[in-house]
Amino acid sequence: MSDDNCIFCKIVNKEIPCSKVYENEKILAFLDIAPVNKGHTLVIPKKHYETLLDMPDNLLAELMKAAKKVAKAVIKVARTDGFNVIQSNKATAGQVVPHFHLHIIPRQTNDGLKFWPQGKYEEGEIEQIAKDISALL
Amino acid sequence: MSDDNCIFCKIVNKEIPCSKVYENEKILAFLDIAPVNKGHTLVIPKKHYETLLDMPDNLLAELMKAAKKVAKAVIKVARTDGFNVIQSNKATAGQVVPHFHLHIIPRQTNDGLKFWPQGKYEEGEIEQIAKDISALL
Repeated sequence: MSDDNCIFCKIVNKEIPCSKVYENEKILAFLDIAPVNKGHTLVIPKKHYETLLDMPDNLLAELMKAAKKVAKAVIKVARTDGFNVIQSNKATAGQVVPHFHLHIIPRQTNDGLKFWPQGKYEEGEIEQIAKDISALL
Repeated sequence: MSDDNCIFCKIVNKEIPCSKVYENEKILAFLDIAPVNKGHTLVIPKKHYETLLDMPDNLLAELMKAAKKVAKAVIKVARTDGFNVIQSNKATAGQVVPHFHLHIIPRQTNDGLKFWPQGKYEEGEIEQIAKDISALL
């Protein structure tokens, strides 16, 4: 299963080169060419699935297992203990390539990267939202 | 397995309240009290594991399955299609609570949140780093 217009499918099919770090039957991991920090790696399924919600559970489990393995090697080479895992779904969330990919970003002390500011809920709001979400589960 | 000083273990053990959205035998999901966007949810294992690298593969697979389910409900309530999954490992990467947690952050068009700027590699550098990482895999 491959999408003709997908750059990651082209990488999987070797029509476009990549700096591969790991591969197994179902998963491919390669360096992001525009790294947040050096060693920034993408872990993708070889089959084309757009978002987390499209990923079959079994494949997702295999991808996470591979991601753990890859992350261990990434932080060793980056000589750090810290890393972030980031994954974006749909353009609304900043997903540029519509083929599921997990970012593994090694972090360095004082690399200056900070996550988004966190806000707060109005009185009673958190309970209402939790109720609305849990009603769907 | 529980850590006496861990705030998330206290939430799991009901010593501290939370705005729960989902629970099964091994997993708990609740709203982050300091949300990046409304509906920002944390998905955690009930057992105490510090980072992704400490999570057993089977438990990680179950957690990701639950995260998919939770994310579907979160975006429905937030009336959006987009969300980010973020996970931090070790203080170097901004991990504040040393109990594995996956952030599910619903995104809104023009919510103003932008990810970190991405850089570039010097000539030959990407090939060398890929080689160093893949040598460990």
